[in-house]
Amino acid sequence: MSPSLVPVGNERGWIVPVGGAEEKISDPAILQRFVDISGESNARIAIIPTASQLEDTGPLYEEIFKDLGAGFAQALPYVERGDADRDDWHNVLETASGIFFTGGNQLRISTILGGTRVAQTIRRQNANGITVGGTSAGAAILPEHMIAYGTTGETPQAGMVSLAPGLGLTNRFVIDQHFRERDRLGRLLTALSYNPFAVGLGIDENTAAFISPDNVIHVEGAGAVTIVDVADVEHSSVASADEGESLCITNIKLHVLPQNATFDLTTREAKPA
Amino acid sequence: MSPSLVPVGNERGWIVPVGGAEEKISDPAILQRFVDISGESNARIAIIPTASQLEDTGPLYEEIFKDLGAGFAQALPYVERGDADRDDWHNVLETASGIFFTGGNQLRISTILGGTRVAQTIRRQNANGITVGGTSAGAAILPEHMIAYGTTGETPQAGMVSLAPGLGLTNRFVIDQHFRERDRLGRLLTALSYNPFAVGLGIDENTAAFISPDNVIHVEGAGAVTIVDVADVEHSSVASADEGESLCITNIKLHVLPQNATFDLTTREAKPA
Repeated sequence: MSPSLVPVGNERGWIVPVGGAEEKISDPAILQRFVDISGESNARIAIIPTASQLEDTGPLYEEIFKDLGAGFAQALPYVERGDADRDDWHNVLETASGIFFTGGNQLRISTILGGTRVAQTIRRQNANGITVGGTSAGAAILPEHMIAYGTTGETPQAGMVSLAPGLGLTNRFVIDQHFRERDRLGRLLTALSYNPFAVGLGIDENTAAFISPDNVIHVEGAGAVTIVDVADVEHSSVASADEGESLCITNIKLHVLPQNATFDLTTREAKPA
Repeated sequence: MSPSLVPVGNERGWIVPVGGAEEKISDPAILQRFVDISGESNARIAIIPTASQLEDTGPLYEEIFKDLGAGFAQALPYVERGDADRDDWHNVLETASGIFFTGGNQLRISTILGGTRVAQTIRRQNANGITVGGTSAGAAILPEHMIAYGTTGETPQAGMVSLAPGLGLTNRFVIDQHFRERDRLGRLLTALSYNPFAVGLGIDENTAAFISPDNVIHVEGAGAVTIVDVADVEHSSVASADEGESLCITNIKLHVLPQNATFDLTTREAKPA
């Protein structure tokens, strides 16, 4: 599911992965910024709670986004593949100014929406300038290659992570969420070691990477975004390692970026706040 | 590693995954056709033996391709990431009319060449009309999503397959090779079940899928190409299955296609020979 082509003269929309557990009531800075870049009071937010199996996830986000000033917010609770045929929901997607995936299990999103017109429309909307984001599982799903599941622990080990095709908004990075809280550097490094072409984004809870149309990451929130840049990796042993064996990966570059720091995905340069 | 854009007015080159163990001496129909579509006596074949750890793999293919009439054939034995800097080898890639990956371990190709200018050049060359193919591991590496490894057996089970980013020539299909010989329908189905958007190509040994610039698969060889079309899948249980649990996937469409049969990847229509 490659990114849709951005029409000539247009800009792609923002892409907003959130690390999970974002503050929703007392200081909802991340969700507020999501509403603001989606049009403030003119924002029309479509919420996709498919990752979650809790029925109140969608209504909860409807209420939050309206409280934060969005003119319109509606949950589209796709729970089986046939739901992609619902024209009333599809119309909401096609007229949205922002689309938000809730947390849960990212494989629920890919198995229920992968290959449907819903996935196609969201990619096209993002290419046409519409904001698309999500939290936790809803962040993992956004790029072409997503971490489906894996084990925790700092040392990268062969077989500790499983990748699957994601939504495909971009191919520039792979995301891991709840990053510091669940000790996931090892599995993100393992995911990147298979083919060192993408940038890794390890996003802490209550933290988001706001990725602008020109592919600059702006960090927002209480924790950090850890950038894992493998462009200069000289060696990765994952091709010869046995299951569970610790990997050898040399020349990894890391940036730990808190609130207001930036990272340019094109030049791969980090700037402190 | 998304496909390079095909320049306006140009056609993409052929993509030629081979299922492994192709006949090289007595009736080398597959390799002969590879030479023919790469320019016959004007063919300039670059061989990438990186998947193999045997030193004679490259020279063997040089000899075969020359015996089959190619005017030029040279192996480029990239064995570490720094080898991507060799300008003499890079020049061979940039002037090739056909590029061929040998068998071995596909993770050696992705870990050694992923994210280097070699991978970029091969994608650009294919977008500019140059034939790119490979056998076994060299077939697996060609698309965006590749099967890195997995277990055999017919029943798809959660966790039986591991995906990794491949070379990224196309995003339309996922390949499994030695298909019938190693009983791999289960792992291909599992790979597709994560996100039912791609077509699965299960390629038998001594069999190839010659994929034309307009995305029609032409089968060549002694076995079959099994097409797994999951466009109409109604349910996939992989999001909720435990490791090793048998999966429920409904409404899979299969085509088993021998020599001269075709499959159109755009319309998803199969035609008997």
